[in-house]
Amino acid sequence: MSKYSREIEVRGHLIDSLILTKIFDGVMDLGGEFEVEKIQIGVKKKDESYAKLLIIGKNQKHLDEILQLVYREGATAKIQNEAALKSASKNCVMPDNFYSTTNNYTQIFLKGKWIQVDNMMMDKCIVVKGNKAKCIPILDVKKGDRIVVGEEGVRVTPPKRPREGMNVFQFMGGSSSSERPTQHIAKKVAEDIYKTRKAGGKIVLVGGPAIIHTGAADSVATLIRLGFINAILSGNALAVHDIENATLGTSLGMNVHDGSLAVKGYRNHMQTINSVFKAGSIAKMVQSKKLTNGIMYECVKKNIPYVLAGSIRDDGPLPDVITDVTVAQQKYKEVLKNAKMVIMASTMLHSIATGNMLPADVKIIIIDINQPTVTKLMDRGTWQAVGIVSDVGAFLPMVTQEIKKLKK
Amino acid sequence: MSKYSREIEVRGHLIDSLILTKIFDGVMDLGGEFEVEKIQIGVKKKDESYAKLLIIGKNQKHLDEILQLVYREGATAKIQNEAALKSASKNCVMPDNFYSTTNNYTQIFLKGKWIQVDNMMMDKCIVVKGNKAKCIPILDVKKGDRIVVGEEGVRVTPPKRPREGMNVFQFMGGSSSSERPTQHIAKKVAEDIYKTRKAGGKIVLVGGPAIIHTGAADSVATLIRLGFINAILSGNALAVHDIENATLGTSLGMNVHDGSLAVKGYRNHMQTINSVFKAGSIAKMVQSKKLTNGIMYECVKKNIPYVLAGSIRDDGPLPDVITDVTVAQQKYKEVLKNAKMVIMASTMLHSIATGNMLPADVKIIIIDINQPTVTKLMDRGTWQAVGIVSDVGAFLPMVTQEIKKLKK
Amino acid sequence: MSKYSREIEVRGHLIDSLILTKIFDGVMDLGGEFEVEKIQIGVKKKDESYAKLLIIGKNQKHLDEILQLVYREGATAKIQNEAALKSASKNCVMPDNFYSTTNNYTQIFLKGKWIQVDNMMMDKCIVVKGNKAKCIPILDVKKGDRIVVGEEGVRVTPPKRPREGMNVFQFMGGSSSSERPTQHIAKKVAEDIYKTRKAGGKIVLVGGPAIIHTGAADSVATLIRLGFINAILSGNALAVHDIENATLGTSLGMNVHDGSLAVKGYRNHMQTINSVFKAGSIAKMVQSKKLTNGIMYECVKKNIPYVLAGSIRDDGPLPDVITDVTVAQQKYKEVLKNAKMVIMASTMLHSIATGNMLPADVKIIIIDINQPTVTKLMDRGTWQAVGIVSDVGAFLPMVTQEIKKLKK
Amino acid sequence: MSKYSREIEVRGHLIDSLILTKIFDGVMDLGGEFEVEKIQIGVKKKDESYAKLLIIGKNQKHLDEILQLVYREGATAKIQNEAALKSASKNCVMPDNFYSTTNNYTQIFLKGKWIQVDNMMMDKCIVVKGNKAKCIPILDVKKGDRIVVGEEGVRVTPPKRPREGMNVFQFMGGSSSSERPTQHIAKKVAEDIYKTRKAGGKIVLVGGPAIIHTGAADSVATLIRLGFINAILSGNALAVHDIENATLGTSLGMNVHDGSLAVKGYRNHMQTINSVFKAGSIAKMVQSKKLTNGIMYECVKKNIPYVLAGSIRDDGPLPDVITDVTVAQQKYKEVLKNAKMVIMASTMLHSIATGNMLPADVKIIIIDINQPTVTKLMDRGTWQAVGIVSDVGAFLPMVTQEIKKLKK
Repeated sequence: MSKYSREIEVRGHLIDSLILTKIFDGVMDLGGEFEVEKIQIGVKKKDESYAKLLIIGKNQKHLDEILQLVYREGATAKIQNEAALKSASKNCVMPDNFYSTTNNYTQIFLKGKWIQVDNMMMDKCIVVKGNKAKCIPILDVKKGDRIVVGEEGVRVTPPKRPREGMNVFQFMGGSSSSERPTQHIAKKVAEDIYKTRKAGGKIVLVGGPAIIHTGAADSVATLIRLGFINAILSGNALAVHDIENATLGTSLGMNVHDGSLAVKGYRNHMQTINSVFKAGSIAKMVQSKKLTNGIMYECVKKNIPYVLAGSIRDDGPLPDVITDVTVAQQKYKEVLKNAKMVIMASTMLHSIATGNMLPADVKIIIIDINQPTVTKLMDRGTWQAVGIVSDVGAFLPMVTQEIKKLKK
Repeated sequence: MSKYSREIEVRGHLIDSLILTKIFDGVMDLGGEFEVEKIQIGVKKKDESYAKLLIIGKNQKHLDEILQLVYREGATAKIQNEAALKSASKNCVMPDNFYSTTNNYTQIFLKGKWIQVDNMMMDKCIVVKGNKAKCIPILDVKKGDRIVVGEEGVRVTPPKRPREGMNVFQFMGGSSSSERPTQHIAKKVAEDIYKTRKAGGKIVLVGGPAIIHTGAADSVATLIRLGFINAILSGNALAVHDIENATLGTSLGMNVHDGSLAVKGYRNHMQTINSVFKAGSIAKMVQSKKLTNGIMYECVKKNIPYVLAGSIRDDGPLPDVITDVTVAQQKYKEVLKNAKMVIMASTMLHSIATGNMLPADVKIIIIDINQPTVTKLMDRGTWQAVGIVSDVGAFLPMVTQEIKKLKK
Repeated sequence: MSKYSREIEVRGHLIDSLILTKIFDGVMDLGGEFEVEKIQIGVKKKDESYAKLLIIGKNQKHLDEILQLVYREGATAKIQNEAALKSASKNCVMPDNFYSTTNNYTQIFLKGKWIQVDNMMMDKCIVVKGNKAKCIPILDVKKGDRIVVGEEGVRVTPPKRPREGMNVFQFMGGSSSSERPTQHIAKKVAEDIYKTRKAGGKIVLVGGPAIIHTGAADSVATLIRLGFINAILSGNALAVHDIENATLGTSLGMNVHDGSLAVKGYRNHMQTINSVFKAGSIAKMVQSKKLTNGIMYECVKKNIPYVLAGSIRDDGPLPDVITDVTVAQQKYKEVLKNAKMVIMASTMLHSIATGNMLPADVKIIIIDINQPTVTKLMDRGTWQAVGIVSDVGAFLPMVTQEIKKLKK
Repeated sequence: MSKYSREIEVRGHLIDSLILTKIFDGVMDLGGEFEVEKIQIGVKKKDESYAKLLIIGKNQKHLDEILQLVYREGATAKIQNEAALKSASKNCVMPDNFYSTTNNYTQIFLKGKWIQVDNMMMDKCIVVKGNKAKCIPILDVKKGDRIVVGEEGVRVTPPKRPREGMNVFQFMGGSSSSERPTQHIAKKVAEDIYKTRKAGGKIVLVGGPAIIHTGAADSVATLIRLGFINAILSGNALAVHDIENATLGTSLGMNVHDGSLAVKGYRNHMQTINSVFKAGSIAKMVQSKKLTNGIMYECVKKNIPYVLAGSIRDDGPLPDVITDVTVAQQKYKEVLKNAKMVIMASTMLHSIATGNMLPADVKIIIIDINQPTVTKLMDRGTWQAVGIVSDVGAFLPMVTQEIKKLKK
């Protein structure tokens, strides 16, 4: 055995979910060596596999670097060390060498046993309080917090590749293309939404204003009314254009129902913003019967949460918009708690934000007409995401129609 | 009056259709001067306008250059010269200084009167035989042909901007966007198709294989069967994938109707090609009842023309494909004769080819999911084209559904 | 003269800058009629033109609607009425029928004379205090403010189309394409930047993190150091990745200078954020010599303003980020004051925000690899904007190199 | 052992190159079962691995289907059967159940031993003559040819994932992104081109007209002159615009060197076509000194092969263009013989054509500004391809500059 080597173990769907491939990649990318000491591949397709590898570096530092990489892919040291902790010296400052999280299921080895880390998100740190470990963002770090440092004593469980049960994920999990049968995919998506809700799962829509511009507001409003969308995460523009559409019949100054140029349409979105300010809020506008249809109306009526995060490009913004983005992030995170499925439609900004907050096992459906946007959102390479390059103005109405059929 | 100057005249919708703006542009871009000697703007909106301008250059060459540019925008010299002709010295060789055509309505001044040039296409030359003038491609130039040279004695009539009557053209003529109400646009397109056919107009579909991959084959087949598409211009891939879809139920190896991986699907498109070779041709495959549905089937049954142009990327290609591109160009051109509307769906290659052959007054509807493709096809800037950034797999079925409603 | 008619006048480059075309469009789009009572087209190319039109509606309401549209294109009533004012009933609530602004030069007719409106921005309102008129956003409206209502007594001056002097704007003003000579365009852009600075004009860069990822950080840092960029408007990501690049040599975990996978690179951006929090701010990091190069470093050293606007997708965000978007908007607006040129590179979010705040005569250069982004940013159709579909990682270094040559 | 089962074996980099994962995928996608009977993972990173699996189907047909799929991923039956052969019944007609090829290294088991199949291409068939096996397209099938049918007795060797030696392939093999350090990637590409040529490897450029429009013609001409490009595959447009650029200084009517509007520029590309027809061919134009620079000039001077394949959108086309696409395909194929590296720049059409003809171990570098194009070309998922989303007008000059540095 080399001087600078370490035995590691890994269990799971090593072949199917690419875990072993990624560990081999990690070692080779950093110029290390490995020896496969033992390997048991699950005999049948549902069986787990097991591997014991000897990882070899050129020196202690090199070995440590390699280990840190392979641990993140689900490997653990054969002989387990305790997770190391260090105190935060100030608010909002993590110790050097803090453990930077993935969004996978994570445990830490503490006082001789593995404990689960709550609230997993990407690129955060882990704080330990008593016997509890929690994933928190840097802004929540308080002076004196005990933060996990280094990579020892942390066990990550990469998500399994879905094989059965979820329609569209089984069918195209991890991939995206514009050259797929659109109507069929819409049907599969509808079935997955229907099944998720039947099983009591929470579905969150993250949406941009193109939903309104392309004429899909009615479809989304219907999904909310029928109970298939349980929360909305968005920004100022979706709400403004939805209310403009609902009250004035226009979107960006064009009559949505016949496409003609609206009289004085250029000022409609500003007039809409003014109307909401006049009412005081979206909810008050509904109460006073000034707003009687559309996405925001259904949210209020159905009493489902919606979070409108402010952005630098907002007109207004509406009084309902949370203008401080760190507060908006907290609200997003609350709404996402226990979500089973997230539909991201035509918004890169809010979708990336949401993606950062989601644990790896939440199903994600991305719909956008712009392939680079879909590619970018899919880049984290989770098996739980499908990317659909289509026109939301055509796709969402198809989904809604299919769900209505399923309901009958 | 300057030494190097010339009086020109121009008539038509000078303001509305930007004719005057383009003439001013031309003069200024080339560093010339102009004086507006007379201008009469049509008093009411349907009235034509008239302008007489003095164009001034720095020297004779400069003036000629400017004049050549402004003539192409519809201006004519006040005192008209005969069109100059020169003989072709060899087959396929035009005289130097040949007049390079636009696709606008064009006349030449010959023996004291204006005669119309037939068969206008972009970037070709004009041959005169007796009292007839015709636009021909370079390959058709024969030694001794009398070809128009220079820019004198040629009158171009730019197309008018459509204002009334045609739905989607009036609504979004000359523009494109992905942020438009899709369902509504599909309805407008359906109405325009319906109206065009009611009036006896010929409609040509220029389509790519994404029509099949995205699941729109049925919709297109229906449009053919109902008589709303009167010719198909495409290539090998559309036909192969349509027949694969019709006979094996797959597209690119995937079952189109339930999206599952087809058994041995990877070889289906080659098997399809082999089947057509075995039958001898697509028509024979229909006759022998080996092909009983789909786009190509409906073309054969309905006896409408289809031209499959070969390309360097073809698998096979099918025996029906015209492998010589210059022959294919002639066939395309024949089919396009008297077309009133051309629908270009998901193919840049065949759409550009078709665009080059069309006179400027043919209505063009471009549908593609990729905005740069739509932008490129729209770049000629005709008022007669609309660009729709949408998913053909969703859009075409909507159009077909709307047309069925209109038929009732 | 019809009962429902009104004489309007308009002056300027009516043909060249499409003013007359847009007025005719407006009347026809709304189904109105017009009569051209008088027209004088500037005899030479620099002369202004003048038109007097009679606008005719079907009834008073129809006429008013048409008038409101044509006034926005630069027309004024022949007999001028005073601008109407109405008090705001509450904070953040404009009177119904408030005048919604364009970003063009605007005057109002008050007490018998035209006064200029300060601080013009798109989609805001106009408040009058004493003899002063100012464009303000809805959030700044205070109860009792006198706000302009209706469209009478407001005169808009559309910007002229640039013809001479500014290189790239003259060359491709108002258009965009990926099929242009890149090196040449980079040279033209460099010349325009150089000329603008020579004349004392302020240049603002609005940039996204792709500047760092594609390896253009050095180029931008150099432009700041040499004085060719005078302010930066951006968000958290640009700053984080710039500092990661400057301190750890990586961007998104990859070594920028040799493209290899950085050891533990996955945590570098979080480590960077932690380092800034540890230092207290970017400026303090520079003072303590922890940050010694890069874009943010040069900003601090050169003492030029930078505004980092928070967004919902921020990691951290850095202590320097303004997390309240309405505050960030005010800061952006301050920085943009008197800017002569704005370069928008690889960020749709901050570019749209900036576009909304700019008067129409500021030169805008948009650079993005994604054509739909460029198209969207260009959609306002100003002559003062050029869109360049290119790779910032290749384009900006070319620009910097050309500017260095010019400096010699 | 199940009644419908079969033992298969597979060797190679099972984990690293995803072979085992793909076999597992295949079995599961088709609803089959497997048992891992034996597995030996190479102990060190360069060692090969070996696996013996029992594949189980629901019935004989199901089993056969699964086997056919896994054989294509490199597995072979434990007890090997002879490849089955069947005669072609007609010219251009393959037997039913013909073996449809991959572009991987392939052998067939004939008379008790494995023989290599020559000339591997994607989606073709295998003909056996004596002891020789060759991959041929359907058009080359002659009546009576002995064609491989079924999947037994065919052994495919998937390409290994490159780990060392080739710069840019090691660095980003199999992936693409616009958010990478452009200058650095250009350097890596230059190093790989340089190294390939030093080792005597043949480099083929597949290019589109955007090379000329974006101003990269000089860079490509230089690479040819210096011997770094050994053949050109393209179409009519590249040649026309290159010669227009070389003789008239314009591309699409714009002066490439200063971007101004060329006088009569609209007719330059037609004039160029006419000039070539006048000379008789491109080579004759060079001989008569009418063409003295540019890409086509360097090809003629350097005597390297260039194939211009006709397409339906061609203007002209030039006399040098091969208008029959099946002839052009043969010429492409000849030129590609023994190529070590293929650079695909800004042309989807010719790049897809070329991709279909290449064996899997040829290195491919794809450069395009449009991400969907790059994604589509990369979709075959070979490790030997890299996709670079950049602007050829900026990227190719950088590559040429780096190669000049390396030459010194």
